[in-house]
Amino acid sequence: MNISKRVQALTTSPIRKLGPYAVAAKAKGKKVYHLNIGQPDIETPAQFMDSIRSFDEKVVAYGNSQGEPFLLEAIQKYYKEWGMEYNTSNIYITNGGSEALFFAVMTLCDPGDELMVFEPYYANYNSFAKTYNVKINAVPTSAECGYHLPSEAEIEKHITPATKAILLTNPGNPTGVVYTEEEMQMIARLVIKYDMALISDEVYREFVYDGEYKSFGQMPELEQNLVIVDSVSKRYSACGARIGCLVSKNEEFCKQIMKCCQARLCCPTLEQIGAAALYTTPKSYLEEVNQEYKKRRDTIAGALAKIPGLISSNPKGAFYVMVKMPVDDAEKFAIWMLESFDVDGETVMFAPGNGFYDTEGCGINEARLAYVLKSEDLEKAISILAAGLKAYPGKTN
Amino acid sequence: MNISKRVQALTTSPIRKLGPYAVAAKAKGKKVYHLNIGQPDIETPAQFMDSIRSFDEKVVAYGNSQGEPFLLEAIQKYYKEWGMEYNTSNIYITNGGSEALFFAVMTLCDPGDELMVFEPYYANYNSFAKTYNVKINAVPTSAECGYHLPSEAEIEKHITPATKAILLTNPGNPTGVVYTEEEMQMIARLVIKYDMALISDEVYREFVYDGEYKSFGQMPELEQNLVIVDSVSKRYSACGARIGCLVSKNEEFCKQIMKCCQARLCCPTLEQIGAAALYTTPKSYLEEVNQEYKKRRDTIAGALAKIPGLISSNPKGAFYVMVKMPVDDAEKFAIWMLESFDVDGETVMFAPGNGFYDTEGCGINEARLAYVLKSEDLEKAISILAAGLKAYPGKTN
Repeated sequence: MNISKRVQALTTSPIRKLGPYAVAAKAKGKKVYHLNIGQPDIETPAQFMDSIRSFDEKVVAYGNSQGEPFLLEAIQKYYKEWGMEYNTSNIYITNGGSEALFFAVMTLCDPGDELMVFEPYYANYNSFAKTYNVKINAVPTSAECGYHLPSEAEIEKHITPATKAILLTNPGNPTGVVYTEEEMQMIARLVIKYDMALISDEVYREFVYDGEYKSFGQMPELEQNLVIVDSVSKRYSACGARIGCLVSKNEEFCKQIMKCCQARLCCPTLEQIGAAALYTTPKSYLEEVNQEYKKRRDTIAGALAKIPGLISSNPKGAFYVMVKMPVDDAEKFAIWMLESFDVDGETVMFAPGNGFYDTEGCGINEARLAYVLKSEDLEKAISILAAGLKAYPGKTN
Repeated sequence: MNISKRVQALTTSPIRKLGPYAVAAKAKGKKVYHLNIGQPDIETPAQFMDSIRSFDEKVVAYGNSQGEPFLLEAIQKYYKEWGMEYNTSNIYITNGGSEALFFAVMTLCDPGDELMVFEPYYANYNSFAKTYNVKINAVPTSAECGYHLPSEAEIEKHITPATKAILLTNPGNPTGVVYTEEEMQMIARLVIKYDMALISDEVYREFVYDGEYKSFGQMPELEQNLVIVDSVSKRYSACGARIGCLVSKNEEFCKQIMKCCQARLCCPTLEQIGAAALYTTPKSYLEEVNQEYKKRRDTIAGALAKIPGLISSNPKGAFYVMVKMPVDDAEKFAIWMLESFDVDGETVMFAPGNGFYDTEGCGINEARLAYVLKSEDLEKAISILAAGLKAYPGKTN
């Protein structure tokens, strides 16, 4: 039978592809510090399970395609606290931020259209595009410039009539970059000038460590062009709940998204109940989590700064840092760390950087590190990384 | 901003589009018997919530992209009892049967390829195809032939080099047809002759009322061409759990599906725990449910047979019956029933048939009735339908 070209073109997740090497390392008794995956170790607030346990309907029935009203209202209230006023008709519940991204891309782009991203970018953006035969139009950023955006003129050079949307993460995954006010205004100007859509993936909104965070949703001039992607996964450490949403004030977009929602009937009932309860978690929870990650950010940034020949993004948000390492090939180095290296029986796993780039040959000696471990463990993990970099046969320093 | 042609082409669900008329009717104090949607009223087995309530992990973390091992094993065991031997590597958990269908279509067909269906067919198959710019190749069946398949020669006339897969539901939604042994062998011959894939949506496997059910998975010659779509939604009356799966012995297909699974990370953890518990429900539960629906089938088939000028499928499975009614337009009739007709303050809602057809102008005077109500209510509902057919200004009888 026939296998489609589009799915053949999908790549294996750079975050998960080295999984078998980790399994093998553990089978040999090695301890592996996982810096490869953005799975927080923070406890999920108890409200989640408490509310689900009290579900007592006799039939677990189909829900609303748009999402359950109580969850739509909880999210509406959450945004209001951020100074963003939405009607519930602007909000569409999705199976994680992932489905929100799938829906946004399929609704904004036809086959052959282009989705502009800034590389390095969240690797699954490739899958969201390829699934719908949409082309990635990747604008490069570099370790040397802290992965910040290039100039307006430079970005403009990449825009073509086929460029229907810009997709970005802010705070950034995999870079940890938080866009400056100037960068946001530049993006807004470009989006409006070329009447593109802006898909703003803001699932790390609360994870900003130096100063206030501003959402693209707080820029009134973007109202008709903006689609926000959101999720409870990182905010409330509930990645396994798979509850996200799409938010937009563009009525035509909302009307079309409703058809996408109907095509898959609805999102799971119980997880929506749990998610609504998560949105009642007191703000102090999010502040404490922020403080914990800030500590970790300081730890990892400090430890990385001491490694000779390593260039790191200056991470301001999310819980990732992108690094350029003095090695021939970060994927080879990652495999070598799992297969052939340890410090007292311990090693480190990270996500090779090339999977976060579209441009062939880019990111070969880069890696994404997720600081989702306690500070002590992070310190240990980075010291093992440093020792590995010294011992690795393919080092270039 | 740009809205894609593909999503503009999606249609509103024929099952849900008349919803606002039902809301208005209820607001006026009318009671509405819902025969429009396949939402069973049977209680979800208690195992579902019991197992979920006992979840006590501190972090609701990302799960496996393929699905949780305990659920894969539960499904493997379930199939074994049906005489179908699968490895867990043949099974992929999905967000409902819907996502299984999305994955199957995107993996088997590129833009411009054709998906063969037999009309009338489950309306969302349209969305699954259009989303990926795949064309529906609809082979007609008719009320007069009980919606059974046309001859092998007739089907063969519709097959083109672009026809990459046949997608069918057995037992059938919206027709209630269960394919005969001869029909299944004919499909198998065609699939093998043209090396197509067969996507067999068997979510109603246990809902067969006259004799044994045979799955396409029990035909060894189909092993390399078959993809089964399954779900707990109808089997265990757990539509809101959104847990389905894809099953195939074709290794290349499985390898590709794994990439689709990774692109959306994983399915929800709790609902997978609940679903695994559902698969431990004793067989007697499914037998009782079968008996209850058989009674309902007998009730509705008997009541419909007495309506002059109405032709109905001879429903053998699932919980739907497709009817051809002596009216000018079933959608107009459905709206009239909600807006302008009642018997002692009660009326009936059903799904207009045209939404289940691809061919323009087909199914105009047809409707799908879901017999998901108790027999007494069904009897009442059909008597109201009969009275409505007598009083409707657009009647043709």
